[in-house]
Order: sequence, then C-alpha cells, then structure tokens
Amino acid sequence: MWRGWWTTRRATPRRPRRSAHPARRSPCRQINRRVRHGALGRPAPGIDCRCRAVASVAVDDTAATRQTTQEYVDRLEGRDWQGLAGLLTDDVVYEMPQTRERIRGRDAFLRFTIDYPGDWHLRVRRVVADDRMAALWLDVRVGAEQLDACVWIEVSHSGLINRIVDYWPAPYDPPPGREHLTERW
Amino acid sequence: MWRGWWTTRRATPRRPRRSAHPARRSPCRQINRRVRHGALGRPAPGIDCRCRAVASVAVDDTAATRQTTQEYVDRLEGRDWQGLAGLLTDDVVYEMPQTRERIRGRDAFLRFTIDYPGDWHLRVRRVVADDRMAALWLDVRVGAEQLDACVWIEVSHSGLINRIVDYWPAPYDPPPGREHLTERW
Repeated sequence: MWRGWWTTRRATPRRPRRSAHPARRSPCRQINRRVRHGALGRPAPGIDCRCRAVASVAVDDTAATRQTTQEYVDRLEGRDWQGLAGLLTDDVVYEMPQTRERIRGRDAFLRFTIDYPGDWHLRVRRVVADDRMAALWLDVRVGAEQLDACVWIEVSHSGLINRIVDYWPAPYDPPPGREHLTERW
Repeated sequence: MWRGWWTTRRATPRRPRRSAHPARRSPCRQINRRVRHGALGRPAPGIDCRCRAVASVAVDDTAATRQTTQEYVDRLEGRDWQGLAGLLTDDVVYEMPQTRERIRGRDAFLRFTIDYPGDWHLRVRRVVADDRMAALWLDVRVGAEQLDACVWIEVSHSGLINRIVDYWPAPYDPPPGREHLTERW
C-alpha cells in the first residue's frame, strides 16, 4: 500500500551530503571550512583545484607572508630578539651569496644578528609577497652611510621564516660609454 | 478597493536591481563582469573593498605580472628586441641605484640593452609577483663569470612594464670575526 510521499521520504533517508570518511572529503570543502573558521587557511600539499576556495587561500597565504616579512624588519629594527626568534623556524637557514656564507639554525642566526657591528637601521622600501615567498627591498643606514639591501624570504607551512637570502649591493662607478643614454642622481 | 496582491505587485513595479547609471554601479559588480568575461580584470584605481571579486582580481593581476616578468627575461635572453619593446611602456624608467644611473624611455632602454657588452645569459632563479609589482632573482652568466641580480619591476595599469630597478651585487670577502657562526660554499 502506498502511504504518501512523506512516509516514503522518512523510510528512505537522504544520502548524506558529505562522505563520513575524512580522506574522501573534498579538499576544497575542508579549506573552505578552515577559511570560514578564521584559521590561517594554508592549503594542504598537493591541493591544486581551481575553485574559489583556493583563490582565497592563496590570498591568505600571501597576506600572512607579507605580514611576517614586515614584522621581521620591525623586530630587527626594534632589537626585539625574542620577537624575532618567534618568527623563525628552529632550522632557519640564512645565506649571503656574495661572501658564500651560510648560517644554520635560529640560535646561530640570532647570535650573528645581535653581534652585528654598527648602529644599523632598517626601513622597508618594498615588500613583494606571493604565497610563501617574499622579496624585501630595504633602505639600510649605518651611521651616515646608506645602502640598499635585497632579501629573499621563504616561509614554511607553519607560517615561520625558514630561509633568508641577503644581498648587499655596493655602489660602484659606471663604466664609460653609456653617458649618452643615462642621467645620474 | 483592494484588488488582490497580484494586482498590487503589478501596479508597483519592482525597484530595478542595478542602477542604470554606470557611475552608480557597484565597482565589484563591474569587476565581476570583467572577470566573468575573461578580460584582464585589473581593478579601477581607488577600488578597495573586501568582496570576493577583488580577491579574484588581485590574483589575476598577480598572475599577469608574473607572466610579464618571466617574458621580460625570456625576450632579453632570446635577443627578441621587438618582443621586448612590446612589454614596455613608452616612458619606462630603468634605474641602477649602485651607479646612480637612470635611463628614461623605451628607445633609450632598448639601445642600452642591445649595446650591452659581453655574451650575457639570464636564467630566472625566482619570480615573486604581487599585484602589479614583481621581484626577479636572476642567475647571470657572462662567459665564465657568474653573478646574481635582483630586479624590481612595476607594471602599469595597461599591463606593460613601466619601471625596472636593477641591482648587481658583486662578490666580496667576508669580514673576520664570524667564522664560528658561518660555513662557506
């Protein structure tokens, strides 16, 4: 006997909208939930879909990297060594390709920075951040001397800086033969 | 006399959902349409809202800047001067802060580049792009010599490069006193 559509619906429960097994859930749903709940929203490795969620996550990662990079400069400039340590992974690597020097680990990097000679001051000229990479253009003053620095920063999945590459380009005289094309300042 | 809800609805036309005057339309709606129609989707100046459309637009701008920056290197490396010219605004400015030299205009910059001495070759180490700014980390070879370059690029609203700032950091010997913290490569 047919008992009406309402009883049929009760007898046949609707298919759940989401698989109960976490591994079968759409990564986009999971990211969406993390974004919705205000978490950092970093995508799990290997997630590469083109839904709106991933765009939001990429923008979130970029914003977090930009902020971390700015804070890195602020804490250096403020000699806030504890705050600086809080931005770095334990095994952060710091490199200066011009001298082919590498420093491994947070403690050694902090020691190097704390001991760095001179009354140096840093000002951000530009931060360019993209996902977990940033490039940092600095105006550096040491006493009356001014120079620019170019810094390449990588941020780990945990949101901490795990690689810093510093370039300190020094002034030099231009070679002759191009004065007709250039102006000096 | 009340004539029923249906006649009331007919007698009072619904308010149009969008203002007819373009200036009163939401910028987000306009951007959304441009994104939907596959245009480049650059935001008009002054648009600063936090809706999803702007996130999409920012991602589009970043992707376009990243691609333009990569093409800038490809065309330099390929000596494709006509292709290179097509990436630059007429009034592009090129600067080398280390020598305090500035070159104004596409023609002068092309001349400078075409005449640049040596069999130079460029390889991208990294591009970091953010909206209409990019930072470019290059591996440069001139004969047997290798050096890195750091380049800061700005892209105009038209999608063409309108500012290039080049740094050429030269190798130097590390100062003494930090050997206990560093390794050399």
